Amino acid sequence: MHTYQSPPAGNEISCIFHGISPEIINNNALIRETLLAAIEVESFHVLGIVDHHFEPQGYSAVILFSESHATIHTYPEYGSFVFHIYGCRSEQDGVKTLAYLKKHFGATRCDELSRRIIVDRLK
Amino acid sequence: MHTYQSPPAGNEISCIFHGISPEIINNNALIRETLLAAIEVESFHVLGIVDHHFEPQGYSAVILFSESHATIHTYPEYGSFVFHIYGCRSEQDGVKTLAYLKKHFGATRCDELSRRIIVDRLK
Repeated sequence: MHTYQSPPAGNEISCIFHGISPEIINNNALIRETLLAAIEVESFHVLGIVDHHFEPQGYSAVILFSESHATIHTYPEYGSFVFHIYGCRSEQDGVKTLAYLKKHFGATRCDELSRRIIVDRLK
Repeated sequence: MHTYQSPPAGNEISCIFHGISPEIINNNALIRETLLAAIEVESFHVLGIVDHHFEPQGYSAVILFSESHATIHTYPEYGSFVFHIYGCRSEQDGVKTLAYLKKHFGATRCDELSRRIIVDRLK
């Protein structure tokens, strides 16, 4: 029997975007749409989304892929949002998605952290 | 008008669990149930879940909270899974959830990374 085997190395990126304009950070529809467009750049396959519009402000979304996930949480009161992505295909997963978000959201600073995710058996 | 303001510091934890027994790593229902029980320890409020049972094996779930999110992706072929949690309430968010998972899943090794998430305006 053939058993599917994931590649042993994926990638995760966590990034806090600061200094987003009020016009963008309060536009939940735009944020959702831009995130979905960013994901498409890397051909992730979306299996499902859960999102929430907070009152009086704030937006969160978690998106499940065949190849792992992406999440976003906005903080309009601070002009910031927190983005996370994990892809299990390669060590480059998420890099282009992040670049797309940087290009479209115009942050004044991004606090970024990434690491290889090794799921392989221990030697 | 009163506008809700999130605390400026939250916490994220990413952890790869290695050496999980076949009985556990192939039991998707148990993994889901244990994750939900772990989250309850910290009183996160679940807004929604998307999960997926892969063929022939593997399970993924993303869970949206009022206070951010948790995710899990299993790799039965490697006896491992990848867990991520982000909480926007305090710098201790996720610590007890992770401890609960460690206690119940019996990993031989955990590759853990955590960082404070500061969403505050830049000074």
